[in-house]
Amino acid sequence: MSSAAVSSAVSYARENQKRFLDELKDLLRIPSVSTTEEHKDDVRKAAEMVAADLKRIGFENVEIIATKAHPLVYGDWLHAAGKPTALCYAHFDVQPAEPLDEWHTPPWEPTERNQNIYARGAVDDKGQLWMQMKAYESLFKAGGGKLPINVRVLFEGEEEVGGESIEEFVKANATTGKLKADFALVTDTELFAPDLPTLCVGLRGLVYTELEAQGAKTDLHSGVYGGAAPNAIFGLVEILSKLKDADGKVLIPGFYDDVQKPTADELKAWEHLPFNEEDYRKAEVGSNVLTGEPGYSVLYRTWARPTLEVHGIVGGFQAPGAKTVIPARGSAKVSMRLVPNQDADDIFKKYSDYVKKITPKGIQTNIKILSKGPACVVNTDNPYARASVEAMHEIFGKDTVYIRSGGSIPIVTQFDKDLKIPSIMMGMGLPDDNLHAPNEKFHIPNFYRGIESIIRFFQILGQ
Amino acid sequence: MSSAAVSSAVSYARENQKRFLDELKDLLRIPSVSTTEEHKDDVRKAAEMVAADLKRIGFENVEIIATKAHPLVYGDWLHAAGKPTALCYAHFDVQPAEPLDEWHTPPWEPTERNQNIYARGAVDDKGQLWMQMKAYESLFKAGGGKLPINVRVLFEGEEEVGGESIEEFVKANATTGKLKADFALVTDTELFAPDLPTLCVGLRGLVYTELEAQGAKTDLHSGVYGGAAPNAIFGLVEILSKLKDADGKVLIPGFYDDVQKPTADELKAWEHLPFNEEDYRKAEVGSNVLTGEPGYSVLYRTWARPTLEVHGIVGGFQAPGAKTVIPARGSAKVSMRLVPNQDADDIFKKYSDYVKKITPKGIQTNIKILSKGPACVVNTDNPYARASVEAMHEIFGKDTVYIRSGGSIPIVTQFDKDLKIPSIMMGMGLPDDNLHAPNEKFHIPNFYRGIESIIRFFQILGQ
Repeated sequence: MSSAAVSSAVSYARENQKRFLDELKDLLRIPSVSTTEEHKDDVRKAAEMVAADLKRIGFENVEIIATKAHPLVYGDWLHAAGKPTALCYAHFDVQPAEPLDEWHTPPWEPTERNQNIYARGAVDDKGQLWMQMKAYESLFKAGGGKLPINVRVLFEGEEEVGGESIEEFVKANATTGKLKADFALVTDTELFAPDLPTLCVGLRGLVYTELEAQGAKTDLHSGVYGGAAPNAIFGLVEILSKLKDADGKVLIPGFYDDVQKPTADELKAWEHLPFNEEDYRKAEVGSNVLTGEPGYSVLYRTWARPTLEVHGIVGGFQAPGAKTVIPARGSAKVSMRLVPNQDADDIFKKYSDYVKKITPKGIQTNIKILSKGPACVVNTDNPYARASVEAMHEIFGKDTVYIRSGGSIPIVTQFDKDLKIPSIMMGMGLPDDNLHAPNEKFHIPNFYRGIESIIRFFQILGQ
Repeated sequence: MSSAAVSSAVSYARENQKRFLDELKDLLRIPSVSTTEEHKDDVRKAAEMVAADLKRIGFENVEIIATKAHPLVYGDWLHAAGKPTALCYAHFDVQPAEPLDEWHTPPWEPTERNQNIYARGAVDDKGQLWMQMKAYESLFKAGGGKLPINVRVLFEGEEEVGGESIEEFVKANATTGKLKADFALVTDTELFAPDLPTLCVGLRGLVYTELEAQGAKTDLHSGVYGGAAPNAIFGLVEILSKLKDADGKVLIPGFYDDVQKPTADELKAWEHLPFNEEDYRKAEVGSNVLTGEPGYSVLYRTWARPTLEVHGIVGGFQAPGAKTVIPARGSAKVSMRLVPNQDADDIFKKYSDYVKKITPKGIQTNIKILSKGPACVVNTDNPYARASVEAMHEIFGKDTVYIRSGGSIPIVTQFDKDLKIPSIMMGMGLPDDNLHAPNEKFHIPNFYRGIESIIRFFQILGQ
């Protein structure tokens, strides 16, 4: 983009980069972890900071909407008569920071290193939420208090725990007009590679459960009772080992029945993406080998094949040293990523039925569902997708690639289903940003390019 | 036993029952957990209390012997010329009290209920140690400062973590004369049934390990990397599931090669023991079914068959709620109980080799050995076993039964091997005493009968 063509909004954004980053740091210092009860107030604090800034920069009808769990933040500016309306989504809650001892700098004290900002939530999703906010501020400032299109923002505080409240809110307002829009802007995904503008057009769904096993009434001496008493951890291990084989194939009967394959065109496009499996293995995964189903490429396996993972396990004696007990209880967190056409309720039922069937004698199991949502693929044949591609071409100087993500953003599916609008997933993360892991980061130039891309995206739509 | 035949030592013991029990409570209040570093000073405090009482009641050469880990306590009285010498063993360390919330009364505040004393270590083994101490006090008092036989006491503070220090001490003093004795008295086992005098003549050995698994370099997002990255917990689960089948058969190649069967006579005697499998299942194990190898009785399975158990497992995200990580690390505590003729080093090697072989791709494993010791069967064809049977017949009014224990007391094997002396395992625990579990207890009448049985045992040997 030539400097002559730089809009005054983009100029404003460039002049205020340092302040924008400082504000983001303030947001990152709030440990707004939605998965644990103890941080409930912090999630609220993050909501309040976001709502206050929405008001300050020019939004109207700003409100913090109470829910059964964590609040939503809403605001709008709807005075661009005849122009399209955007529904803009991001989330201000974050994953837990544990394991803390693996962070090089504290997760709640944002630290700049090598043009990155390190903190829990840097890229997922506070950095990308603030990227939207600062685009709107720049547009308001350059437009004399006006935006080039109509904008509704709807930010949530429980994306990391399944987003039940926003789901109910969207459902309740699908016909009230409160969320009426032509398209959604979602900034919670990533670029396929540094400097490569990317639109994400597919997401996996998720069924996340907790599986508990109980054996004897209490822990027993393993010398005295070893050979006669059921062992809850061993029972749990037996069950888990039968959920997936060594090649990553899920063994739940009927699990793959409804899996929809990507189109031949999509598969072909993936083959042309700049992807080096060896670099990915070393730099991103950091393991001596990649795993997963044979016969599928890495992108196919992680974007368009359903998977099953154990996220955590606990039971029995865990302190240092030796304690000779037969544990009475154990539990594991188990989730399944779903692909298009798999139904979350159906998969949960198949999983529950199978666990019941393979539970060994002497063991009782109990399954709790912690979150669920289906996969989705979004349509890009619309003026909004085309405008976003044009905007990113200006800012990055390159053509956009279309990818999927293996992660889950249930709200995108719901925007499609309940509001009948397409989502533009214009994320600015990077593959090595360590999201959900220690040392999460956001590449600072991408924060700035994201702001400018959104400015130009909305300016193009408002022409 | 008729009251006319009650010795003055027994009378003294009966008159002082309340004080003896109060002293035991003081010992039980010391949280002398040997398995965790934080209670090192408490183990020492317990040693000091025991040593002080040994001196007070009349023992000579009392010393607290420092070791690399927890101290030993030694004392002797060797002036019964021409009489046998006993080497008397018990331990003053205890298992951890966790899980704390399952205790009805605090583990470190001894509480009397229904003629039982509840506390961690009540029966294993502080109550049984103090039972010895109070028998010696009674004998010293009634004998005018003399014992009927020569006595060396050797108490340890790390039985629950493998007893490495006492092993080295016994090895070092096998030929110095410091531990010269005709037999050993060991009070760390149980009666087969309430009111049924019991000699334990066999113990299982133990190999206790910690198995660690590592996958990717760090925890990864399960959406983004699920289908390509190795999962350390799933790797651990795969390994554990292949160690033992659903029937309890250990799958390690060569594991059963050296197993020595009990004699036909011993097996026959076990069939005549008062044992109700249904009561055992309900009251002791507290499960809806008993598990273990088909074709073997419960007593056979728990006394004379080797077994494998997982004691604890931990890895990944364990807090409440959902975190979508592929965990990089997981670990489990795994032990094997051994039977006569199995070699602990050989079994550890077979286990390690097998784990290495079945470790899935993408996973690295590391095995630490936390303790090990072989099984043993002791000979009862000697005057010491006969005297103990006679003494218990007097006190209980019943014939003694001979049993094995599924637990492990490595020192018994070593007394046999290094000192060439038989052990008289005259324990007074009960099958439902919850040792190593919450609500551990000691039946108070058995504390008193144990004191009296030891008094009469030594008096008979000194006649």
